[in-house]
Order: sequence, then structure tokens, then C-alpha cells
Amino acid sequence: MTRAIELANNAYQQDEVPVGCVIVFNDEIIGEGFNTREKDQHIFTHAEVMAIKQANQRLKSWRLEECVLYVTLEPCLMCAGAISQARIKTVFFGAQDHKAGAYGSIIDVSQIQQLNHHTTVYGGLLKEECEEIIKNYFKAKREL
Amino acid sequence: MTRAIELANNAYQQDEVPVGCVIVFNDEIIGEGFNTREKDQHIFTHAEVMAIKQANQRLKSWRLEECVLYVTLEPCLMCAGAISQARIKTVFFGAQDHKAGAYGSIIDVSQIQQLNHHTTVYGGLLKEECEEIIKNYFKAKREL
Repeated sequence: MTRAIELANNAYQQDEVPVGCVIVFNDEIIGEGFNTREKDQHIFTHAEVMAIKQANQRLKSWRLEECVLYVTLEPCLMCAGAISQARIKTVFFGAQDHKAGAYGSIIDVSQIQQLNHHTTVYGGLLKEECEEIIKNYFKAKREL
Repeated sequence: MTRAIELANNAYQQDEVPVGCVIVFNDEIIGEGFNTREKDQHIFTHAEVMAIKQANQRLKSWRLEECVLYVTLEPCLMCAGAISQARIKTVFFGAQDHKAGAYGSIIDVSQIQQLNHHTTVYGGLLKEECEEIIKNYFKAKREL
């Protein structure tokens, strides 16, 4: 998660909503990403999407069954859907996203029994550090 | 939807689950896609993702507020999340996806009140034609 926080800080420096993500397989990072939506102007630049894409390429497979994903902010519906599609085993997230989070905030995707893959999700890892980056970003935006 | 069905047939010919999608803006197609997951081995190759990416590029914006999306199969959770992220106004889908559909089958994303964008969704457009492609594909697979 420390590396995910570093990646979130990269996004911050580029004036993007600061979210960072890493994917680990066999104790090695095989995918990394941070949000670049404003720069790229397309919606598939969320940190999780970038990290999953990299991991898919690295493993030459769309299946990431034995992987663990760490992300600084609770994933949105699109990313939670992507995590399920990629069959990721475990997710750790830091801060809750009360407005759009799909692991407990607006819905809990991990509880949809009909999905053909089930991900175990843990929230609140390095919560304070993860919350701080987001809070600082939006505080700075409001002060502009 | 007729063009989306043509695109689904492209996927069929490439031995992929046959799903096709188009996005329309001001009566013009600005995004098209069909599923290429097996060939590309990454998860962001669903028809809807390809079409949204193309539309984002065409409009040079991640916001597709005035667009209408046509897809032959009920979108999955990831794609329904992407549709919401892209703020697409209206979705028409053809066949229901009882195992993974996120507009009524396993969940109904269009009914999540907390999402900050609401898409109007209509299912069953050219339903028989859309169902037929999928059924033929899986029938042929079982006979292999």
C-alpha cells in the first residue's frame, strides 16, 4: 500500500484526483497505475484499470486469480466490475469513497452472490494516510 | 442496433463471444466495438469498452452526456459502471445476460440512486436477432 500511496502522489502532482494502485503476484508487483483521467480524457484511466491492464500484459492472460490488488481509494462500480472480471482474489483499499465506492459505500459488489467470481475485500488499510492525500487534493482545489 | 449486430458477427467470426456495440451522437456513429478478449488477453476488450474509448477519442472528452449506446447483450457490471462513468444518457440492449447482466439480471445499476449520473436503459431491442447470435455461438462451442 505504501507504493500505491506513492503512485497517488504522482497523480496529485499532475493535478489529477490522487488514487494509486498496485497488483501483486507471488510477492512481486506486476501492475501499477494512477489516475490520469483529465490528461487523457477517457474514462479507462482509473488507477485500477491501468494496473489491471499492466498485470494482464505481464501475465499474458486476462485471468488474475492469484493476484492481490492494493488501492488507496475504494473502487468505483466500473473498477469493482473489472476486478471481478479479472478474477482478482483479494483487494485491500485505504480510504472509503462515500459518493461512489462499490465495496460498501453505495453498493457492495463483493456481496453479489450471482457473480461468477468472488473477491475478498478488506477496507481501511493505511486509512489515515490514504484519506489525507484525497482530502488535501480537494482542499487545495477549493482554495483555488 | 443493426450495426451492433454486424459487429457481433465480426466477433463470432474471430471465435470470440459475439457482442457488438455502437455509440451514437447527433445521429452519427462515433464509437464502435466488438469483443476481442481471447485474442487480446486483457479484460478491457468488451464491445462497450472499445466503443466508449473510441467515442472519448472522437469527442476529445471523457463525458458522453448526449450519447446513446446500443449493445447486443446486456452489459456486465464493469461495462455498466463504465457507462455511468462516461455519463451516457441512454442505453438500448438486445438480449438479456442472465448470468452477468447488470441492468436487471444479477443487479440493476440503473436503479442505484446514489450514482451521480443516471442512465435510462431499455432492454429487448431486436431481442430475437441478438439472442440468436449468442445462442448459435455457444451451441457451436458445445458441439466442438
